[in-house]
Amino acid sequence: MDTLLYLTPAFGAVALLFALNRARFVGRQEAGTDRMVEIAAAIREGAMAFLRREYSVLAVFAVVVAVLLYVANLGGGTELVGLSFLIGALCSAVAGWFGMRVATAANVRTANAARASIAPALRVAFAGGSVMGMSVVGLGVLGLSGLFLLYTRVLLVGGDLQGQILQVLSGFSLGASSIALFARVGGGIYTKSADVGADLVGKVEAGIPEDDPRNPAVIADNVGDNVGDVCGMGADLFESYVGAIIGGMVLGVAYAQSLEADPLRYVMLPMVLAAFGIAASILGTFLVRTREGANPQTALNMGTLGAGVLMLAIAWPVIGMLAPEAQGVLYGCLVAGLVVGAAIGLITEYYTSDERKPAQAVADASNTGSATNIIAGLALGMRSTALPLLLIAGAIALGYELAGLYGIALAGLGMLATVGIQLAVDAYGPIADNAGGIAEMSELPPEVRQRTDKLDAVGNTTAAIGKGFAIGSAALAAMALMSAFQQQAGVGALGLSLGNPVVLSGLLIGGMVPFLFSSIAMQAVGEAAFDMIKEVRRQFREIPGLLEGEPGVKADNARCVDIATAAALRRMVAPGLMAVLIPVIAGFLDKNFLAGLLAGALVSGVLLAIFMANAGGAWDNAKKYIEGGQHGGKGSEAHKAAVVGDTVGDPFKDTAGPAINILIKLMSVVALVIAPLIR
Amino acid sequence: MDTLLYLTPAFGAVALLFALNRARFVGRQEAGTDRMVEIAAAIREGAMAFLRREYSVLAVFAVVVAVLLYVANLGGGTELVGLSFLIGALCSAVAGWFGMRVATAANVRTANAARASIAPALRVAFAGGSVMGMSVVGLGVLGLSGLFLLYTRVLLVGGDLQGQILQVLSGFSLGASSIALFARVGGGIYTKSADVGADLVGKVEAGIPEDDPRNPAVIADNVGDNVGDVCGMGADLFESYVGAIIGGMVLGVAYAQSLEADPLRYVMLPMVLAAFGIAASILGTFLVRTREGANPQTALNMGTLGAGVLMLAIAWPVIGMLAPEAQGVLYGCLVAGLVVGAAIGLITEYYTSDERKPAQAVADASNTGSATNIIAGLALGMRSTALPLLLIAGAIALGYELAGLYGIALAGLGMLATVGIQLAVDAYGPIADNAGGIAEMSELPPEVRQRTDKLDAVGNTTAAIGKGFAIGSAALAAMALMSAFQQQAGVGALGLSLGNPVVLSGLLIGGMVPFLFSSIAMQAVGEAAFDMIKEVRRQFREIPGLLEGEPGVKADNARCVDIATAAALRRMVAPGLMAVLIPVIAGFLDKNFLAGLLAGALVSGVLLAIFMANAGGAWDNAKKYIEGGQHGGKGSEAHKAAVVGDTVGDPFKDTAGPAINILIKLMSVVALVIAPLIR
Repeated sequence: MDTLLYLTPAFGAVALLFALNRARFVGRQEAGTDRMVEIAAAIREGAMAFLRREYSVLAVFAVVVAVLLYVANLGGGTELVGLSFLIGALCSAVAGWFGMRVATAANVRTANAARASIAPALRVAFAGGSVMGMSVVGLGVLGLSGLFLLYTRVLLVGGDLQGQILQVLSGFSLGASSIALFARVGGGIYTKSADVGADLVGKVEAGIPEDDPRNPAVIADNVGDNVGDVCGMGADLFESYVGAIIGGMVLGVAYAQSLEADPLRYVMLPMVLAAFGIAASILGTFLVRTREGANPQTALNMGTLGAGVLMLAIAWPVIGMLAPEAQGVLYGCLVAGLVVGAAIGLITEYYTSDERKPAQAVADASNTGSATNIIAGLALGMRSTALPLLLIAGAIALGYELAGLYGIALAGLGMLATVGIQLAVDAYGPIADNAGGIAEMSELPPEVRQRTDKLDAVGNTTAAIGKGFAIGSAALAAMALMSAFQQQAGVGALGLSLGNPVVLSGLLIGGMVPFLFSSIAMQAVGEAAFDMIKEVRRQFREIPGLLEGEPGVKADNARCVDIATAAALRRMVAPGLMAVLIPVIAGFLDKNFLAGLLAGALVSGVLLAIFMANAGGAWDNAKKYIEGGQHGGKGSEAHKAAVVGDTVGDPFKDTAGPAINILIKLMSVVALVIAPLIR
Repeated sequence: MDTLLYLTPAFGAVALLFALNRARFVGRQEAGTDRMVEIAAAIREGAMAFLRREYSVLAVFAVVVAVLLYVANLGGGTELVGLSFLIGALCSAVAGWFGMRVATAANVRTANAARASIAPALRVAFAGGSVMGMSVVGLGVLGLSGLFLLYTRVLLVGGDLQGQILQVLSGFSLGASSIALFARVGGGIYTKSADVGADLVGKVEAGIPEDDPRNPAVIADNVGDNVGDVCGMGADLFESYVGAIIGGMVLGVAYAQSLEADPLRYVMLPMVLAAFGIAASILGTFLVRTREGANPQTALNMGTLGAGVLMLAIAWPVIGMLAPEAQGVLYGCLVAGLVVGAAIGLITEYYTSDERKPAQAVADASNTGSATNIIAGLALGMRSTALPLLLIAGAIALGYELAGLYGIALAGLGMLATVGIQLAVDAYGPIADNAGGIAEMSELPPEVRQRTDKLDAVGNTTAAIGKGFAIGSAALAAMALMSAFQQQAGVGALGLSLGNPVVLSGLLIGGMVPFLFSSIAMQAVGEAAFDMIKEVRRQFREIPGLLEGEPGVKADNARCVDIATAAALRRMVAPGLMAVLIPVIAGFLDKNFLAGLLAGALVSGVLLAIFMANAGGAWDNAKKYIEGGQHGGKGSEAHKAAVVGDTVGDPFKDTAGPAINILIKLMSVVALVIAPLIR
């Protein structure tokens, strides 16, 4: 047991070392022509500048909250929650920073490798993605288990496990969630405002191709892919991961007591499972290799599938070691989580792939104009909530049946155990995407772009499945955190009754929060995109020769990057603060009201997140389907209608939708952290 | 007390006599030129044919359900629930039939009156609307109180008030809700498929004006206004009204017991308040009169406001008489309901009026194309849920604080007590709209159309406020029915705890139901509209001289009417059955699961209903705002973008949105009716 306690942080350290090794590998590759290096430098500079400015804002926020947490808990024995919070926030920030640094080096090197052939390009891009993935799981496990060790062995020796140590530890999750929400919202606003601005003025008004270097917003657009899809997603999964582990740890105490077993073992189990998940993920990355001519998709599938199978194999003895009293049922929960996660992923893929009927029906609807395209997409998104919700409810019911609330937490963990490799695959996508942009802007031969496009495209199915895991695990993790809050706040079953109108009021208001939050996020994208549109129009108007492509005339890329940065940072504040403050206010009003509020936010949040993600994905792929030559192909009326749907879908699937995943967990973890104050 | 018991049905009878009187008044008016008579006959014929076919389908459904209810309750003493169900369905059907018959007579007479001036036209249109309003409240109160009398004095003398009599009576509400859901969904599909079909081919493709007689779908479009907005809405409010009364009656028993008062008085109170609300509504209609040159809006406002004030004045002594133990608190609940209903109405008006910033911002967003128009409308709809949800939650909390669950039911009743006049104003709108269509098709002088347009426009604010009442009361009535179910099914507070994952699974799945339901309804509109589009295109193509407007060449209107009818009837079945069957299946699985499911459906249903109604309303008015000359006016790029938003909004605000209001109550009342079977 003691060995395991000391061994767990070591797994985290190994992940970080592996990330370092992958980063070195990326660094060793050639960066290509001078033009490529110049463009890549502009993207990296923009991305890192955004991160610096974002982190300076968040540092103030983090310090203020840490002090508030410390002061509010003074005298209660839980003051150190402020420390956990700071370290959680720091770990999330470091993971994002490291992952993005390497991603912005890997993009140009992927493009350069693609000049030769596809296999080495895949290797570079995937190595870049692996850095993000391994940083996240490494810092997650290292941070959590390190703090746990610190508290149990040094600072809070002999403290009450549930009431003090785990309560203090929950601050780590709050830190992770806060940073994640701001990073997701800020990154989401950044990427979509740049994307929409670049497309609307460049492609639609000026009629120049995507990623054309004449377009002043094109660097900002590529920066956006990094801050939104690499860093934002990294922070997102970091918090899911940490939330699922912490939720399980808190619920472990009561479950162990119900079995009359040693609580410490059940508290450690989620952390240890995560640690072994790291090992599975690292081994999985070695399965990702492809030969020239083979389908790179197979390589990525081999990696994630392999890691999943390995995890299942390792989990059995691990559970047997720590929880022999309940080995079978707990393993069942883990497997159920994994299966449900994969199933939701396949459903996501079914509803959004351009090779399947649903998205093709959206493409068909484009024949009668953009209105019918929009209606079809909205209807598809709404319909697509049905099966995932049934599966999530099924996982909750099964997990509870097998092992109570702890079982639900373990099912959630089952979805997230191999997040290291899942995130590597996810982050690989924007790197390949960026490589394509760099190839275009550096005017490399068209076959290079074709290769990067192929790399970009194959990530899609895997990414869709990853999204399924993200949504499913968010629901289960939020559920676990919510239950943990109920235990820590001492909310009685009677007080929580649906027959209690205070709970119902909370349910209604909580349900409203994701709607309001989405609205604010979508509006922010609209406003920020408008700033960008004005600037691009201005440059085309005022810089002579720019639009005509006269040699030596350059667009003022830096200004567009600045505008996107400023817009994203300014507009991420309101939704972020809202998410943090609402549960605090609700909690101090009435803890049963807060419990209802969390449940309401969970229900409508999960629904909206799935609705938005799938509608957005289907619109995107309906457009791609038409671009593939259906319904008249590019430039047809149907294509124009489909472009409208795709543009509506952008803030749906890349800003509001994913941010809601974080929102529902953040609200629950805020509740968990303030639980002792409103007990 | 006995007097009151016998007096209550008399109020219902008075309402029906008043409706008859108004119908006679309408019938006495001149119908105008031969052409007008001919067109009006086509509309009426189409509308009545739809109703006949719809009712033949529903009659089978009603008889089957009645028999099932009888058989399932055999031996439990509650067999008569089947009878209540049949009578409830019948009352709803008769109200719809009568209201629509008169509405389709009033439309042409309004157009004819408008040839002279605006004041008599208002009188005719409002008289037509009053028939719908008074039929609904009259049959509601007469049916309910008549059955109550029958059961207490004849068939179930000495039966247990809560467990037997009220349980049996709840079948009336189920009958009303079932018919309402089918009527709303069927009518909504009908009206929007005809509308979209007529617009897309006529206005957009062929470039002929709205309501042009050359357009074969134009009669169907006008029929749709009647079957959707008159009959569908009538059935909708009939079931809200009945649901609010029944919910209050069931909850009255427990509340009276808590006061150690006579339960019968508290059970009767909701019915008696509704009866006096009829009196207030009838008196209110006399305040609706306008002089030439005055704003007709003032007249309508005077009517509804006057009825509201009267109701407040009457309610105090009525409550004092039946519930002296709690006169103050119950009156407080009623007032709170009324105030919250009006406030939600004003918020609705704020978010959707073309004279306010939100809808104007949607119009502004149309300048950058349809994508930004859609995003702005969706964001507006989501944001607009915030205040209404806070108000509804406030009303629930206050009602409960004052008088427990019974207080919540009374707050809901406060919103609905004067539904007689509210519905009269609501139904007046489509009559004026139809009058305009008839004026256009009969080629009356343009000033006639201007007058009917003015009449149509002024109803909008009042209609928006009416929508606020509808949504607010739906939430409170569903809540009351849900609580009534919990009492009747004997669901314990512990079983209902949010800490119970079975409840949470129910919550998640219940939340999904309105999403799935909306998707099916929207898709049905899309498919039905497509049938219509094909037919209109065919006629333009195959009937020589039609599009050119050669004299003597007529469109085949009847065929379009047939297509809309068949499409609506075929496609209303799946969503309707879904709504009825889901709670039955859930209930037989586990009653706590069903309780969670109802709460989840309530939360996401209310949110979606507000979101859809307000987004749709704002799109509609943003288009009207541009047509008023802003952003380049009609024919500009902004206008084209706004038309897309308006088309997307149609199934939102006229099909899916209002049907969800019924859905959440129908599910609750199904649960209430099957409660003894799953106890």
